[in-house]
Amino acid sequence: MQHALDTAIELESLEAGRFVGATSPSYANMVGPFGGTTSAVLLKAALQHPDVLGAPISLTVNFASPLVDGSFEIVANPVRTNRSTQHWILQLTQGGIVAATATAVFAVRRETWSAPEVLMPSDLPSALDLICTPVEVSLPWVHCYDMRFVNGEMRFDGQEQSNSNSQLWVRDEPPRPLDFASLAAICDCFFPRIFIRRRVLAPIGTVSLTTYFHADAAMLTAQGDRHVLGCARAVNYRNGYYDQSAEVWGDGGQLLASTHQIVYFRD
Amino acid sequence: MQHALDTAIELESLEAGRFVGATSPSYANMVGPFGGTTSAVLLKAALQHPDVLGAPISLTVNFASPLVDGSFEIVANPVRTNRSTQHWILQLTQGGIVAATATAVFAVRRETWSAPEVLMPSDLPSALDLICTPVEVSLPWVHCYDMRFVNGEMRFDGQEQSNSNSQLWVRDEPPRPLDFASLAAICDCFFPRIFIRRRVLAPIGTVSLTTYFHADAAMLTAQGDRHVLGCARAVNYRNGYYDQSAEVWGDGGQLLASTHQIVYFRD
Repeated sequence: MQHALDTAIELESLEAGRFVGATSPSYANMVGPFGGTTSAVLLKAALQHPDVLGAPISLTVNFASPLVDGSFEIVANPVRTNRSTQHWILQLTQGGIVAATATAVFAVRRETWSAPEVLMPSDLPSALDLICTPVEVSLPWVHCYDMRFVNGEMRFDGQEQSNSNSQLWVRDEPPRPLDFASLAAICDCFFPRIFIRRRVLAPIGTVSLTTYFHADAAMLTAQGDRHVLGCARAVNYRNGYYDQSAEVWGDGGQLLASTHQIVYFRD
Repeated sequence: MQHALDTAIELESLEAGRFVGATSPSYANMVGPFGGTTSAVLLKAALQHPDVLGAPISLTVNFASPLVDGSFEIVANPVRTNRSTQHWILQLTQGGIVAATATAVFAVRRETWSAPEVLMPSDLPSALDLICTPVEVSLPWVHCYDMRFVNGEMRFDGQEQSNSNSQLWVRDEPPRPLDFASLAAICDCFFPRIFIRRRVLAPIGTVSLTTYFHADAAMLTAQGDRHVLGCARAVNYRNGYYDQSAEVWGDGGQLLASTHQIVYFRD
């Protein structure tokens, strides 16, 4: 049986660069689908394009409106292909109206000097030492992830916190071998930092989500279907918009992705 | 006399949404112009569009190739306008070939609960307590900024550092009142972190640059032409690509922008 994520990001190819997909009830969010699957399906349109070069390096998705449940169309346009890099513009439409835009950079990497600068936090319990954390908000997409919080869980007791930091182990539920699309989706699985900070439920919506891919295909294969560690925090909340950043670590301590987003919020 | 930045980002409007500009020798970089002016001129195309709504919230610029010295064309397309937000796709071409792509989100903000989470570093010397730091690489664009490093200067002595953190006060040189375009440019003024870390000069190029605007027009006006504080660091270097992040603070301690980029590098 196909994994629910693969159903959610399944694309039928029309002519080259034009695809049809559909929202999936498994990944339903408060309004429309989980942004992570929208991000993943846009990336997948490029990955599935016959002219694709190399692997994802960066992806920025702008959410222009919540998706309506049902089908959508993606146009994926490789606007410039160099010797080792490729630049994409993508648009997701419903009934001819833009619901999301994206740009992506793909590249063929070569071996160079490499070094971390931010390090994976040490002394954390492993995923298997923790239980799957119960989440107070019962949304379908949340049940598609096994999240084991080390700290910074989401609670709605109205007690404002001094920060919104969270550290959690996360994997697809049921387990699924990690690939670029599922990594893109995981990069949006960090609960809105304003909920962690204020512990009050209020309307929010990501407006722009950027992901930088540090992993290559071999690193993703090596990670398999085991939990990855996510470390998320906010930067600044001001007059309706705030930004949050996160790193996603493989369980061997390698950085798989870093991700940033800016989010609309109401009081 | 017009400020050199205003010359570099000057756009002539053809029909609605189509503009012509030209690279400026004042902002020349190693190869092609400083990416900050490219970012700023793309933002300016949206700002100058007759249908623009609100103020910039986020901007992502993808550099598909170095610009050739001379003229360029920008097409700015507001692909979706909601009640209080607007989504843009922009393309910069030279001779019909894409040299840069961008997406932007604009919005009309309203007053809400606001709070910082990352704080401006305290106990730093003020800009006026420091001198303009001499920079070893004499590129034209560098002379368009007055940079006063608190720490993390760029030196090329081949002594690898344990990190690439820099804190510096920076303003346009000569002074120019801060606006969204100049703030977008300043967000790319942080020297490539790999130079700070390795202290070796080697080919690099930003491939994608994202800026989140926390300031509104009133905050920019209040900042005027005084130095802003930039705090930059790298996240991870691996096989040809690394990412770096920075915050830009007003001298009153308010966050004006946060910014992230992923950069191609060679050994």
